[in-house]
Amino acid sequence: MLRYLGVDAGGTSTRAAVVSADGTCSGIGHAGSGNPVSSGIDHAAAQVMLAARRAIRAAGCPPAQIHSAVAAMAGGRVVSDPDWLTEAAAAEGLPFRFRMESDLHATFASGTARDEGYAVVSGTGALAVRVCDGEIDLVSDGIGWLFGDCGSGFWIGQQVAREALAGLDRRGAPTVLSTALLEFLGLDTAEHGVLEGRPRAVQEIIDVLYSWRPVELGRLAPLAFAAAGDAVAEDIIARGADALATTLRAVRTPEIPGPVVFGGSVLTKQPRMVALVQERSEPFDEVLFTHDGLVGAASLALKRSGISVDEQVYQRLDATVAQQRARAEDRTANAAPPEP
Amino acid sequence: MLRYLGVDAGGTSTRAAVVSADGTCSGIGHAGSGNPVSSGIDHAAAQVMLAARRAIRAAGCPPAQIHSAVAAMAGGRVVSDPDWLTEAAAAEGLPFRFRMESDLHATFASGTARDEGYAVVSGTGALAVRVCDGEIDLVSDGIGWLFGDCGSGFWIGQQVAREALAGLDRRGAPTVLSTALLEFLGLDTAEHGVLEGRPRAVQEIIDVLYSWRPVELGRLAPLAFAAAGDAVAEDIIARGADALATTLRAVRTPEIPGPVVFGGSVLTKQPRMVALVQERSEPFDEVLFTHDGLVGAASLALKRSGISVDEQVYQRLDATVAQQRARAEDRTANAAPPEP
Repeated sequence: MLRYLGVDAGGTSTRAAVVSADGTCSGIGHAGSGNPVSSGIDHAAAQVMLAARRAIRAAGCPPAQIHSAVAAMAGGRVVSDPDWLTEAAAAEGLPFRFRMESDLHATFASGTARDEGYAVVSGTGALAVRVCDGEIDLVSDGIGWLFGDCGSGFWIGQQVAREALAGLDRRGAPTVLSTALLEFLGLDTAEHGVLEGRPRAVQEIIDVLYSWRPVELGRLAPLAFAAAGDAVAEDIIARGADALATTLRAVRTPEIPGPVVFGGSVLTKQPRMVALVQERSEPFDEVLFTHDGLVGAASLALKRSGISVDEQVYQRLDATVAQQRARAEDRTANAAPPEP
Repeated sequence: MLRYLGVDAGGTSTRAAVVSADGTCSGIGHAGSGNPVSSGIDHAAAQVMLAARRAIRAAGCPPAQIHSAVAAMAGGRVVSDPDWLTEAAAAEGLPFRFRMESDLHATFASGTARDEGYAVVSGTGALAVRVCDGEIDLVSDGIGWLFGDCGSGFWIGQQVAREALAGLDRRGAPTVLSTALLEFLGLDTAEHGVLEGRPRAVQEIIDVLYSWRPVELGRLAPLAFAAAGDAVAEDIIARGADALATTLRAVRTPEIPGPVVFGGSVLTKQPRMVALVQERSEPFDEVLFTHDGLVGAASLALKRSGISVDEQVYQRLDATVAQQRARAEDRTANAAPPEP
């Protein structure tokens, strides 16, 4: 029986799944960062191969049974040699072809079996994509924290900091975000002194926040959602939802009614945000959520080999990848030394 | 005759002026960065002393005639030892006391002889201060590009980039800023290709802009002012003026009607911005502009020694510092080797 390999290669970890044409996952494997942009090509290739070998071993099938593989990753197509993974695999005695896919395509495919529709993602970054005839044909935003990613976790967290500081600095309306930010940073909320004409709290907050890498500001996003009823926090959330609806609108076309797959921590953990984006959008026929990028990569591995992924196959993929993941976690837990 | 020394110690250069009680400047001197925060205390002290010795030599007066000095700089008061400059001066045989002042105070004092009023500054950063009884008693904004500096050159430049990109990315209204930005960056404005679902121009712009240090985005601010009549550019300028008016409002009090001293390149080079900030503010009794921070430092050197700086003394300071500066520039030009 032929099998197929899907790989979800991220900036912090890489996972691979061995699946068969009916969608059954028979083994998964983990490794470190498989992204060539953040880790370099050699390291990325080694980690993808490690995850692949572990998945194949877990599935208990000979490598010769693997028909082909799809590796989904950010920026993977910009590597000048399109066959860098196929060559790395051949060198390790894994004689099948690797095809690269955008991680955004895997995000879409992780939420639906269909070959057209949209994904809107708000995690650290934010963007929307359109999938048409099984290919991503339009992307909007996702251009990074300094120039875009509007409505992302970074964007919301930065607004929390800006508004909390403006409230302390007499420029903005008073907001509970000021106290919430001081508490979050472990600073004294009862300190009302002035330092060179400026509230001491302002100076203390910026001293801490400028020591962070900018993208870490996404850590402050939950403060906005926790401050329900505060007008300033509500306005941040509403503006974030406006931005995401605008980004989604930028890729929508009447010929493709949907579905819309919502992904990223801001949308999967904050149902209110999804509702607000929906309110601000033209109606779409179905709201779905990303589950696991590995399911999307495995689904694309089947589709790219000409295998039809219908709703039944997709559901089986989703369920059996989850089962194998639970099994792998059990193995890891059992392999750990017993507690003293 | 006693003389007084004013020093304007900036992050890139330091200038010192020797002045007498009637406001006559008799010599100025230049040196490198005198800011202890950006250059370290030892380097800053050495540069301040170099500028001071050069000014004293240009004035042709014995160091013993210098009664006292004021050094205006950003963050200078944060240095734990308040006497770091006085000690450095004594070690060099300059036996007078240095007093530290905020560069913001010198900015205010460079535009007026008065001891109360406001300064609003928009250069790379943006902020407003209130001066009351000859001291800065309130500051708003000026908290840096990531969390504030609203309406600054950085802020305007970042908005130019964001809106130019949103226009190309279908999220924003079409704007001439998109073409203007491509031209400014030397990129092909006729290229309309698509790269992985994204306009190639978007990718090319962000590749360049992410290679800049964020504060360099201030270089893009003039594009907004050059795009007169473009609705997106006009909106950026209006929002910038709103932000500066809000910051100014945050420090205003009815008991102090003015004057308001406008400073920083955005306000001194863009008269429209000053008019827009005025339109959005409660009326104030006088609009003034910062001239030269060195005039402000010299004025504070006199005031801190109990010498009254009236309008006549202030005007003489302003005129004679400018004369000495022109003379110093002539000397530098004449000292250069002749053209071949």
